[in-house]
Amino acid sequence: MIYLDNASTSFPKPENVYREMDRCLRRYCANPGRGGHAMAKAAGEAVFRTRTLLAAFFNIDRPERVIFTKNTTEALNIAIRGTLKHGDHVVTTSLEHNSVMRPLKHLARERGIAISVVRGDAFGTISARAVERKIRGNTALIVCTLSSNVNGAIMPTGEIGAVARRHGITFLADAAQGAGTIPVDVQDLGIDLLAFPGHKSLLGPQGTGGLYVGQGIKVAPLMQGGTGTTSEIPYQPTAFPEALECGTLNTPGIVGLGAAIEYISRRGVSAIYRHKQALTDEMHRAFAKHRAITLYSRPEHNTGIVALNIKGLTSAEAGRRLDQKHGIAARAGLHCAPFGHRTLGYDLATGVLRLSVGCFTTADEVARTIKAVLGLCR
Amino acid sequence: MIYLDNASTSFPKPENVYREMDRCLRRYCANPGRGGHAMAKAAGEAVFRTRTLLAAFFNIDRPERVIFTKNTTEALNIAIRGTLKHGDHVVTTSLEHNSVMRPLKHLARERGIAISVVRGDAFGTISARAVERKIRGNTALIVCTLSSNVNGAIMPTGEIGAVARRHGITFLADAAQGAGTIPVDVQDLGIDLLAFPGHKSLLGPQGTGGLYVGQGIKVAPLMQGGTGTTSEIPYQPTAFPEALECGTLNTPGIVGLGAAIEYISRRGVSAIYRHKQALTDEMHRAFAKHRAITLYSRPEHNTGIVALNIKGLTSAEAGRRLDQKHGIAARAGLHCAPFGHRTLGYDLATGVLRLSVGCFTTADEVARTIKAVLGLCR
Repeated sequence: MIYLDNASTSFPKPENVYREMDRCLRRYCANPGRGGHAMAKAAGEAVFRTRTLLAAFFNIDRPERVIFTKNTTEALNIAIRGTLKHGDHVVTTSLEHNSVMRPLKHLARERGIAISVVRGDAFGTISARAVERKIRGNTALIVCTLSSNVNGAIMPTGEIGAVARRHGITFLADAAQGAGTIPVDVQDLGIDLLAFPGHKSLLGPQGTGGLYVGQGIKVAPLMQGGTGTTSEIPYQPTAFPEALECGTLNTPGIVGLGAAIEYISRRGVSAIYRHKQALTDEMHRAFAKHRAITLYSRPEHNTGIVALNIKGLTSAEAGRRLDQKHGIAARAGLHCAPFGHRTLGYDLATGVLRLSVGCFTTADEVARTIKAVLGLCR
Repeated sequence: MIYLDNASTSFPKPENVYREMDRCLRRYCANPGRGGHAMAKAAGEAVFRTRTLLAAFFNIDRPERVIFTKNTTEALNIAIRGTLKHGDHVVTTSLEHNSVMRPLKHLARERGIAISVVRGDAFGTISARAVERKIRGNTALIVCTLSSNVNGAIMPTGEIGAVARRHGITFLADAAQGAGTIPVDVQDLGIDLLAFPGHKSLLGPQGTGGLYVGQGIKVAPLMQGGTGTTSEIPYQPTAFPEALECGTLNTPGIVGLGAAIEYISRRGVSAIYRHKQALTDEMHRAFAKHRAITLYSRPEHNTGIVALNIKGLTSAEAGRRLDQKHGIAARAGLHCAPFGHRTLGYDLATGVLRLSVGCFTTADEVARTIKAVLGLCR
């Protein structure tokens, strides 16, 4: 099997992720921060260790500002629902995932927020100037993905961050595509809120993700519950991370994520980027020549996605044939990005075929995939 | 090490939980329901399998009414925040966890809901009649734990469910303590909403939990995001489970929970209950005789908890000594149940020492614990 659905979730994970998770589950998986006994402390320390690793990875000064969530969606909902108030205006882009668009659309109904959507160019790239032009007096938030989940286009996050900073507007970056593939330095990029998945290019297990909340950024909690601290107070504590983190954490998952960050740090984000770049370059080169193939992705500034359609085939049919005839796992359809087709120009009914490489994808797998895709063109 | 903190999280897990999680992670951990390729389908089927196992376990007719959450806290927040509207009244009890009390307290501020708290007797048991007496014309929800997390007292859930049904009020049961130890049949017990953890007596891993939503019960989603279905619609779908489930699920965790449910079903809930009962009986018998020990739990109708204090020691100090001198993992403090002390009568500063047995606790471990606890009395 050739796994080319890494933008959805990475597979496989580094060996140490499996090993550390199993070791945690079998040896010290007590409830972290919920008791003073040795095993609870060991679990608590393991969780804090991953928090510290993530903070270092994203250049975050204070690890307690890293909140663990179950996935990016929860992190985005906390950030969006926790900051936008009645009558606020938000600027976002046409390349956002439903995990951004749906909370915004619901808040438009619930709290009357206004949404301005910046449309990307034909390959989905957003210009920071276009973002700036949408800013109004009541703009409270700018939300932008680091990179399109449909075609891998990398956004000018630092430029958008600078715009946000200049106007004193909170900047939320959706790192679902990007974290682990391109360097993310929240201070350099001017990011106030960073929502990230644990299980995509960060190579951790599903069930993990997080939200970084910058100093001074006020975020109301999405939920309340047990925190293991100040239990006598019937309201949610305001200290971090407990303010936005409640209930039992996913200790084995968080341990796995920590092991993954260590793997990535050893190998180096830029080495991973170059590896993925070389593989997608190869595919772009091969597919660009073929008249039956329409490419919706570009080789440059790409987090590792080749998006295409084959003349006469829906993306679902192309995906089905790759899977069944060649054992290639690709993804077809709309990729939870409902406005992507208007920007990139593919048909809503056809969707788009997405081949997303990972840091363990090999040149041989890519060569076999190119052959298989070309075989579908006639 | 003797692990007696099972009410916080169970340890160890059945061997098949470790094995199936590792197998899932290494072999088929694609994104469930996010693509048509073989591995995504395998992941999707594994998730659905656990959903079906849980439905059968709780006598739920339709598996899609079981929603996966990251923990009980999320499930309770979805249930509470998704059903209570401005001006509603809710009846709850003095034995609830902060994961019930804090969302309610915050909703009192945010939506002006009114809260009536039924106080338990000296050992924490609630009477269904007392619940009924609190009902008003605008009572929209009754929330009650299956069993106290402080002292294991089992509540008359079926009687409370009957009261709720008679008055046409939605009944939310918090199964954090109970699921996996006592039989929970949502139809028999008249439960409309059941919030449950995966990682306590259900023996699954941390990072899992769920919410059952009865037919016809309307619950607004806590968050919105990608669902892998109807991606073209910018609002959350209304079909279950997607209506209340978004973003990538914790596939390896859910697979582990499924393996755990299979283990429990093979061993039998009543056999597990009898096992735990015999162990806590032993402790209650030994401790009741000693004048320096005050017991806050009763042997009968108990999910496996012995709650006590030792004269002259705070619970924290007693816990520390058990841990450091005897390698016994117990939990001290308030157990995230801020009103418990008013009902059960222990001191807020002293807290209470909780010894909670699991289905793998042995008679020998209990004998050594009794000896150690008695050794702390002088």
